[in-house]
Amino acid sequence: MALETRLSDATIRRLSMYLRTLESAHQQRIRTVSSQYIAAENKITAAQVRKDLSYFGAFGRRGLGYNVLTLMTSISKLLGLNRTWNVALIGVGNIGRALVAYEGFRNRGFNIKLLIDNDPDKIGTKVNGLTIQSPKDAELFYKEFEIAITIISVPAHSAQAAADLAVQAGCRAILNFAPVTLQVPQNVFVRQENMAYEIESLSFFLTNKKM
Amino acid sequence: MALETRLSDATIRRLSMYLRTLESAHQQRIRTVSSQYIAAENKITAAQVRKDLSYFGAFGRRGLGYNVLTLMTSISKLLGLNRTWNVALIGVGNIGRALVAYEGFRNRGFNIKLLIDNDPDKIGTKVNGLTIQSPKDAELFYKEFEIAITIISVPAHSAQAAADLAVQAGCRAILNFAPVTLQVPQNVFVRQENMAYEIESLSFFLTNKKM
Repeated sequence: MALETRLSDATIRRLSMYLRTLESAHQQRIRTVSSQYIAAENKITAAQVRKDLSYFGAFGRRGLGYNVLTLMTSISKLLGLNRTWNVALIGVGNIGRALVAYEGFRNRGFNIKLLIDNDPDKIGTKVNGLTIQSPKDAELFYKEFEIAITIISVPAHSAQAAADLAVQAGCRAILNFAPVTLQVPQNVFVRQENMAYEIESLSFFLTNKKM
Repeated sequence: MALETRLSDATIRRLSMYLRTLESAHQQRIRTVSSQYIAAENKITAAQVRKDLSYFGAFGRRGLGYNVLTLMTSISKLLGLNRTWNVALIGVGNIGRALVAYEGFRNRGFNIKLLIDNDPDKIGTKVNGLTIQSPKDAELFYKEFEIAITIISVPAHSAQAAADLAVQAGCRAILNFAPVTLQVPQNVFVRQENMAYEIESLSFFLTNKKM
């Protein structure tokens, strides 16, 4: 069975978390870390860490731990973070503007190169040095900028149209901030970002935990 | 064992997802749904759905499925979404402004009531009808507005100071958008929001999937 079919979404998410832990350890000049160390930093079990890392070979040696630099490099490569990706953003409202300025994308090699909005008052104006383009020119600009990933940050009622536009322009990966399930062809990957999920786990804790 | 100690973070997150599925079904006037239906909508297995829902009693009856309204109400209540929560936001930059305007919080009963920033040029100005307050008045305003949850949307180097401020003001739940691990007392809950995680799973798919 190929690697990618064995890794669950939850595992991929944890690999992103482990990568932060390793980078932080590397900055502190730590050379090797144990599964217990990674586990404690991420508030999960060491068994889970060992299981996740076993998917892509034997990086750790019992009693010696994982080499920080080797593991960092391997996870980066697996996640496709050892290169840059050109990104289009459709919907330059509040969240769109925040995302254009978000360091957390650029730091990882996700470069927003193309902004699209259907508001005539916005088209032609600039945000962070990028000119907002009309949806009707999308296909042209997707090709010119070799866009690999589309971020959708339009209101819910416009999200499907935005997804159709991205797919039409040849894009196969969509990060959707609109609170709606998108219908896309099978060969297109969609990730749903929902900023309410994390705050709901806080209200769960406040409601149920007695401390 | 108490309910809350049996539910993992991943389960709580899935309950938030199921709630969306049930609400969408309810809007379409669907009265009962199967575990297969919930599973397909969220791209996970029906066994996982049944396991998650088994945690809080037998809502489903074999062959009949789950009553949409009953399950919706139960999950809402468990997640603490059958009431409102007053929220403070520290750091009124790009992301902060986007969050103040974010419908996804208000719709769920999370009401941002207090804005705090340490920039003298921002203090006293208004965003979405709310006056930005100085950190030195935080404790007073936390009490006046009965703040339950703090959103931290400051740069990484200021995040720990923001968390200390919230804890000092008596807040026990923090949603952190800054890319840094916060140190807080054991009775304070912290959730880390990282918008890069989802986009990294897209680059993983683009890198590894052959379609």
